[in-house]
Amino acid sequence: MECPPHTKGILAGDVLFSKAFETISHGDPKMPKDVRLALVSNLAKACTDVCEGQALDIMMAKSQKIPTEEQYITMIEKKTSALFAAACAMGAISANTKSRDVTNLSSFGKNLGVAFQIVDDLIGIIGDSKITKKPVGNDLREGKKSLPILLAINKASGKKKEIILNAFGNSAISKKELENAVRIISSMGIETAVRKKTIQYSNAAKKSLSNYKGSAKNELLSLLDFVVERSQ
Amino acid sequence: MECPPHTKGILAGDVLFSKAFETISHGDPKMPKDVRLALVSNLAKACTDVCEGQALDIMMAKSQKIPTEEQYITMIEKKTSALFAAACAMGAISANTKSRDVTNLSSFGKNLGVAFQIVDDLIGIIGDSKITKKPVGNDLREGKKSLPILLAINKASGKKKEIILNAFGNSAISKKELENAVRIISSMGIETAVRKKTIQYSNAAKKSLSNYKGSAKNELLSLLDFVVERSQ
Repeated sequence: MECPPHTKGILAGDVLFSKAFETISHGDPKMPKDVRLALVSNLAKACTDVCEGQALDIMMAKSQKIPTEEQYITMIEKKTSALFAAACAMGAISANTKSRDVTNLSSFGKNLGVAFQIVDDLIGIIGDSKITKKPVGNDLREGKKSLPILLAINKASGKKKEIILNAFGNSAISKKELENAVRIISSMGIETAVRKKTIQYSNAAKKSLSNYKGSAKNELLSLLDFVVERSQ
Repeated sequence: MECPPHTKGILAGDVLFSKAFETISHGDPKMPKDVRLALVSNLAKACTDVCEGQALDIMMAKSQKIPTEEQYITMIEKKTSALFAAACAMGAISANTKSRDVTNLSSFGKNLGVAFQIVDDLIGIIGDSKITKKPVGNDLREGKKSLPILLAINKASGKKKEIILNAFGNSAISKKELENAVRIISSMGIETAVRKKTIQYSNAAKKSLSNYKGSAKNELLSLLDFVVERSQ
């Protein structure tokens, strides 16, 4: 009969989890059964990936090591992108289109997801605190191993590295010291490097849609631009 | 980056949840797609029911009211029986048999599940502490609104009711007082009443299989007998 405060949240999540599979498996009666089955497989695989990505994230957070950029990307491809990719692929599957279209849409979602997460991590460190409602450098103080932070730690040296590492995961740090660490990260050109990275993923996403045209494509490209350009 | 101790357990549960749907949707390639789809629907519905049952259980635990027997049965039909019913129904679905067989097997599982939970609750109050590894009257002390406890509270009066209610949900109660409350519950014939209830469900389960014969049926009936007769 124990009931910690988050129990209801977990339970609500489990209901939505089951309801998604219930809904898809019943689907539109006009939808062919193999389409419905492909939707189920796709969603289930994405959910497994998200769990694996979350496990990787926990492992990274616990580890003393600063992950490489590659390890970070692998983690967010599962934790974040898998569901973006599934959402896009499932659109193509529902339209009962060619497997080539499913692959293209999935690739669009995957690259969109990575771009989204990288921008989100950038905002977590240099975002305007008035808009994000989080203090400047929040992710740095929390010791989050996000892309801008790991790039900064790996690139910095000497006194700069010392200041950044002193702020990293230091909940007792003063506002002034934290802001100084963020200023150093900004001065190192990390934002430019990270923005360049998102452009790479954005371009890969665009390339996945190069064979299509029309308003649906334009909507997806607008979404992509919004995700890449946002700074709040 | 917060990671409370149960996070990994929840994550592992979510992986298994997704993996079940992944496995079923791929299934045996020889298995017809409509069979695989029916398996997905059945499992998804059962998972939703289990969550709803768990929510009912939490509501009952929080409420000041002692639930009626009917409310208790509704709760365990979802929380416990739904997965028993799905497990049995999915066997019939996998065999690609008639919908009548699916209904029969589902009914067997549902009644088996209710019988199992009622016996489990009985053991939780009068079970041998050496075998259950829990102190006698454990569920009573924890304030669990299980069938034997709610029958006892509803049936008792005067001094007896006072002693039972004093033990109910009272973590500070002495061993002696708790054992006395359990003795009173036993003397009221609650065990007999509860065992009678399980026989009803056991008979309903048996009836669901009355049209079948053979070793598979015998295995299921042995399982049913084991569940109903166990006292540890």
